[in-house]
Amino acid sequence: MIAVLCGGVGAARMLVGMQAVVDPGDIVAIVNTGDDTELHGLYVSPDLDTITYTLAGVVNPQTGWGLRGETFRAMQALERFGAITWFRLGDADLATHLYRTGRMRGGATLSEVTAAISRAWGLGVRLLPMSDDPVRTRLRLENTQEVAFQEYFVKLRHSVVVDSVRFEGAETARPAPGVLDSLGSAEIVVVAPSNPVVSIGPILAVPGVASVLRARRDSVVAVSPIVAGAALKGPADRLLVELGGQASSPGVARFVKDWVGTLVIDQADADRAGEVEAAGVNCIVAPTVMRTPEMAAGLARIVLGATGKVVGRSASAPAAPGA
Amino acid sequence: MIAVLCGGVGAARMLVGMQAVVDPGDIVAIVNTGDDTELHGLYVSPDLDTITYTLAGVVNPQTGWGLRGETFRAMQALERFGAITWFRLGDADLATHLYRTGRMRGGATLSEVTAAISRAWGLGVRLLPMSDDPVRTRLRLENTQEVAFQEYFVKLRHSVVVDSVRFEGAETARPAPGVLDSLGSAEIVVVAPSNPVVSIGPILAVPGVASVLRARRDSVVAVSPIVAGAALKGPADRLLVELGGQASSPGVARFVKDWVGTLVIDQADADRAGEVEAAGVNCIVAPTVMRTPEMAAGLARIVLGATGKVVGRSASAPAAPGA
Repeated sequence: MIAVLCGGVGAARMLVGMQAVVDPGDIVAIVNTGDDTELHGLYVSPDLDTITYTLAGVVNPQTGWGLRGETFRAMQALERFGAITWFRLGDADLATHLYRTGRMRGGATLSEVTAAISRAWGLGVRLLPMSDDPVRTRLRLENTQEVAFQEYFVKLRHSVVVDSVRFEGAETARPAPGVLDSLGSAEIVVVAPSNPVVSIGPILAVPGVASVLRARRDSVVAVSPIVAGAALKGPADRLLVELGGQASSPGVARFVKDWVGTLVIDQADADRAGEVEAAGVNCIVAPTVMRTPEMAAGLARIVLGATGKVVGRSASAPAAPGA
Repeated sequence: MIAVLCGGVGAARMLVGMQAVVDPGDIVAIVNTGDDTELHGLYVSPDLDTITYTLAGVVNPQTGWGLRGETFRAMQALERFGAITWFRLGDADLATHLYRTGRMRGGATLSEVTAAISRAWGLGVRLLPMSDDPVRTRLRLENTQEVAFQEYFVKLRHSVVVDSVRFEGAETARPAPGVLDSLGSAEIVVVAPSNPVVSIGPILAVPGVASVLRARRDSVVAVSPIVAGAALKGPADRLLVELGGQASSPGVARFVKDWVGTLVIDQADADRAGEVEAAGVNCIVAPTVMRTPEMAAGLARIVLGATGKVVGRSASAPAAPGA
C-alpha cells in the first residue's frame, strides 16, 4: 500500500499518474483540510473536491479545479444580496457541498462523507481527510491583519506578503481514522508536489503525523513543487521565502529534511542536486512537470521506485510496455 | 396599517392585489414558518420565499412558487449521492437559501434576514416571519407515522389521510419582533385564503397571537380558501374533514369563528352565507378566485372595505379609476 500526502491540483495530477501504474485500491490519499471553509452555511473542502473531480475525470481542465462545463446561476443570484461571491461555487459543484453539509449536520464525520462521495464517483483511490476535526490555516499578513486561507488564496489572489502561518485547531485535532495506520504501514509515503507550507504543512501539524513520518523518514519520498526557483502554481515560492527559507529545490529539501528521506527534483534543477544532498536528503532528478497523464505516470514510476523497493502489487506490469 | 396573516401562494396573490389598492408600505405580512425546513444544511422558508418572489414579480407563473426560468443543475448533480431531491431547489433559488443560511449561521435572526432579502428585492410590503424561533408543523398519518410538513406536502403530495396536526416548538416560540404590535395596532387584520389548518394554524399557535386576535375579532376579516366545497390548491379541504370539520365555507367559518369576525366567501357559495352567519361570523359574498392581479385587487378592495372603515392612506385613490 502507498500513502500520499496531498494538497489540491498538483496532488490530484500525481494521483492520476499513480493509479495508472499501480492498483488504485493500493493508494491511500491523505488530504489537507486546512483550506476547508464554511461558505453560506455550506462545508466546502477544496482539496478533497479537486482530487475527487480529477480522479473522476470531470475536473475543469482549464483551472484544474471545479467541474467541467459548470454554470454559475446560484452565484449570480447571490450577488443581489451582497453576499460573498469571490469564492465561486458552481451549480453542479454545489451539490457536493450540499450533500456533505447535510450529512455532517446529521452527525456524519468528514471521513464518512468523503467515503460516500468517493463511492458515488466510483473512485479506486481511497481518500482520507487528514482529520475529522476542524483545522484552519490562517495567515498573518505584512500589515498584521490575519486572514483565513481562502481569503488569502482566492480573494487576495495570494498577492500579499505573509508574515506567519498557523493551523488553528491543529493542536487538538485527531488524525482521521486510518491516517496514522496508513502512514505507518505503507510501503512508501509519497509527498505530492503540493505547497509545502500551506498544503502539506497542515497535515504535518496534526498530532502524531510528524512523528510517524520522522520514524520512517527513509521511505518518505517527496516531489519538489518548486521548479527553477518558481512554483508551477500558487504561492509556494513566495511563502517559502517569506517564512525565512528559499524558493528552490534545495530550499524545499531544507524545509522537509526532518521527515523526508528522498526528494525528486525537476531536471531543470539538475545542477542543484548536490545542494539537496548536502541538506541530508537523497536526490533524484526527473521530469516532474505533469502536463499530461502520461507524464504524471512517468513521474509516478520514478517516485515509486525511489526507495529501491518494488511498490504496489501491480507496479511493474503497467509500467512494462513503456519501459 | 393593515396586517395580513399569510401562508404561501394564495397569500402571495392576495398581497399583490392589496398593494395595488393601498400603499405597500402600509401592509405588514405575518408569514407562516411552520413549513420551514432544513435541507442539505440549508434553511428553507417556503412561504416567505413564495411571497417574496411573487411580490418581486419573479415567481414561476406555472407553479405559483419558485423562480421563473429556473434551472436545476444542483438538484440533478445531487442525485448522484442519493440525497433528497424530491424537494426541488432551483439553482437561482438556492442563492436565497444560501444567503439566509449563511446569515443565520452567523447569528442573524430569521426576521433580520427576511428584512434584508425584502430590501434586496425592493419589496414595499413589510414581511415578518411569525416567529424567529423554530416551529415545525408535523402531521400524524393514518398509519400512525408522524411526518414533517414538507414530507407530507411535497414528497407524499398530501395524498395521505391525516389523523392529527401539531406545531412542534410552538409552545415556547416567541412572536417575531413587530408581530404582536402589528396585530394589535392594525386598522384591520386580514386572513389570506391560505390553508386554515397548516398555514394559518401555526401562526395562531404562536403564544400571544390568538389572544390579540380574539380581542379585536370584529376587525379580523378572513377570505375562505374553500370554494364550492374544494380547496383551490392543496389539501385544505381534506384536512378540514380529517380533523373533524367540514370542507365548505361554513366549515371554515366554524373553524375560525373564535377570532375572525367576518368571512368573505366566494359567489359560488352564495347560498351558504346563512350558514356562515349562523356560526356567528359576518359573511360577505364576492368573487374570491384570483386568476389575475386585477381580480386580486378587486378582492382586496372588498376585504379592506369589509369592516366599513376607510383603510389605508391611499385606499380609495387607485381604486377610483375602476370604480
